[in-house]
Amino acid sequence: MTASDKAEDRFIQRYFAPLADDPEALGLHDDAAQITVPDGMSLVVSTDTIIAGIHFFDCDPPASIARKALRVNISDLVAKGSTPRGYFLSLALPEQLLRSDDWMSEFVGALGEDQQALGLQLLGGDTVMTKDVSAITICAFGLVPTGRMVKRSGAEIGDRLYVTGTIGDSAIGLWARKASLLGLDALTEPEQQLLARLTQEECAQLELAYLEPPINLAAAGLVLDFASASMDVSDGLSGDAATLAGASECGLIINLYDIPHHPVLMPHLEQHDLRTRLVTGGDDYQILCTIPATHCNAFETAIAKAMVPVRCIGRVVETKGVQFVSADGQVQLVAAKAFDHFS
Amino acid sequence: MTASDKAEDRFIQRYFAPLADDPEALGLHDDAAQITVPDGMSLVVSTDTIIAGIHFFDCDPPASIARKALRVNISDLVAKGSTPRGYFLSLALPEQLLRSDDWMSEFVGALGEDQQALGLQLLGGDTVMTKDVSAITICAFGLVPTGRMVKRSGAEIGDRLYVTGTIGDSAIGLWARKASLLGLDALTEPEQQLLARLTQEECAQLELAYLEPPINLAAAGLVLDFASASMDVSDGLSGDAATLAGASECGLIINLYDIPHHPVLMPHLEQHDLRTRLVTGGDDYQILCTIPATHCNAFETAIAKAMVPVRCIGRVVETKGVQFVSADGQVQLVAAKAFDHFS
Repeated sequence: MTASDKAEDRFIQRYFAPLADDPEALGLHDDAAQITVPDGMSLVVSTDTIIAGIHFFDCDPPASIARKALRVNISDLVAKGSTPRGYFLSLALPEQLLRSDDWMSEFVGALGEDQQALGLQLLGGDTVMTKDVSAITICAFGLVPTGRMVKRSGAEIGDRLYVTGTIGDSAIGLWARKASLLGLDALTEPEQQLLARLTQEECAQLELAYLEPPINLAAAGLVLDFASASMDVSDGLSGDAATLAGASECGLIINLYDIPHHPVLMPHLEQHDLRTRLVTGGDDYQILCTIPATHCNAFETAIAKAMVPVRCIGRVVETKGVQFVSADGQVQLVAAKAFDHFS
Repeated sequence: MTASDKAEDRFIQRYFAPLADDPEALGLHDDAAQITVPDGMSLVVSTDTIIAGIHFFDCDPPASIARKALRVNISDLVAKGSTPRGYFLSLALPEQLLRSDDWMSEFVGALGEDQQALGLQLLGGDTVMTKDVSAITICAFGLVPTGRMVKRSGAEIGDRLYVTGTIGDSAIGLWARKASLLGLDALTEPEQQLLARLTQEECAQLELAYLEPPINLAAAGLVLDFASASMDVSDGLSGDAATLAGASECGLIINLYDIPHHPVLMPHLEQHDLRTRLVTGGDDYQILCTIPATHCNAFETAIAKAMVPVRCIGRVVETKGVQFVSADGQVQLVAAKAFDHFS
């Protein structure tokens, strides 16, 4: 018997070896990968699990599940100012999915496209055949110059607060996804009323943001070069802003009306408390960072050149906590509550 | 709101921060860890998931689940000749376990003891509250001198084949575990007859080997210094030997009667095909390695000094495949089949 006589090895070679060209992956023929880090660089490592019924729906397209599994990890690497390098994939899936060539081909096809776009390689992993559990864990590695990983805790009073992309797309996209899969009855009345204001095409755009959160890789270099503190927005902007402020032992004043939102939502921001829903919803995977005031001009020039959509939304202050204000400085009530898995 | 207002952060700080003293873990306060690798060293990285109902029983002691989750990963690091350094833990557990202080305290207590004994630190992770899924993924890192990770593929004709510890304890331990939890009826008749030959105390010893596979950390240095090829035995000795032979493009002759087994099983080896069951059973997490013949004397001196139980069980030959032979060279029939998750 040779190694390739094992069905598990054949499975790995068929689906995953093509994603693991990197010599350090050893063709996925070994128990482990050997990673050599270039002189003067450190690894930034992050891990996230997504589970069917919690982070995605069982019937989501396999390509979307693959992209979400990878991107929720890469957003952490980008937020820390690191350049993605490689990842380990632990794939626990029900037998009928693992044995479906259509499902697996679509899954690894999307993973391959995404890893190429994001500049990293599969280095190893583990596959478990389950009865009904779908759990996908990725442990992803990026590189930063040694000692320069951008933490949550570096914000200083006077720094400006920036956010990439648009906030809340995914929160509304989840409603659209639920409506697609389960019917409008799965939503609350205000959710239904808000969705009713959008066209089918607009709903589909937001649904895609939920299924496949967008990642802007160019943000990593900008964070590394300019940011004093940074994190990804995964549990809702208001709560994550509070986390960054807490870690940095300072406060944040956020201009509620400067927060960027998806164009299709702009006409409806004053309806049904939508603004608050966008600011407290989760799964954005955008980058929230602080930039020292003296660097803001250079930062804004760099973001324009890199064509990364970034918006200044506030500033770092001494008074602890997060305050949302209107253009005239009036405090706005926002339930400053992150999505909290344990509350 | 500060970071510590989130229930999830409080949970992490209560249970996991004490396991993450390492400054690179940033007190588990950030999205990622920053790992700096000493000059001249590379990382060896491996990941394995264990899932309730497949790799352990839901009602197993939390301390045993913790130890198994860590050890099935550390065995890979040891097999590659690396020194364990750190790990990332992705913990997906049902709400009633995550909210049980007794369960969590026992789980993290055992993890803390084991990581101390094995010389590594928690560096980061992810926690997901599930309805009924228990899935634990660890991604573990070790250090080796750059370029010296010991692969499966380095065996050369003439090398001797060695194995650490005893083989098959866990396979019989699983029967004992099933008998404890589900009654003897959950076993086949030959399994019942074999267990009937053992005392309760002997069954308990084997059950523990299944629940908490033993790891001999000192084997890592010996593998690094002497082995031409190495892997851990996780899917059964016969199949894993075939994998090593296949990766090295050679064959193995294994002296069936030299394979070390647990003392309590020795009197029963000729009953009910027990020898074959031990050699084909999984979950040993011992180390199988090849040593160039010219290094065997030095290797045996070193293992005696390190007090690592290691036995020479065969040799590397040109003819592909794995043959089990008796002392007089007669070929013995062993179903040379690894546990194959996908067959």
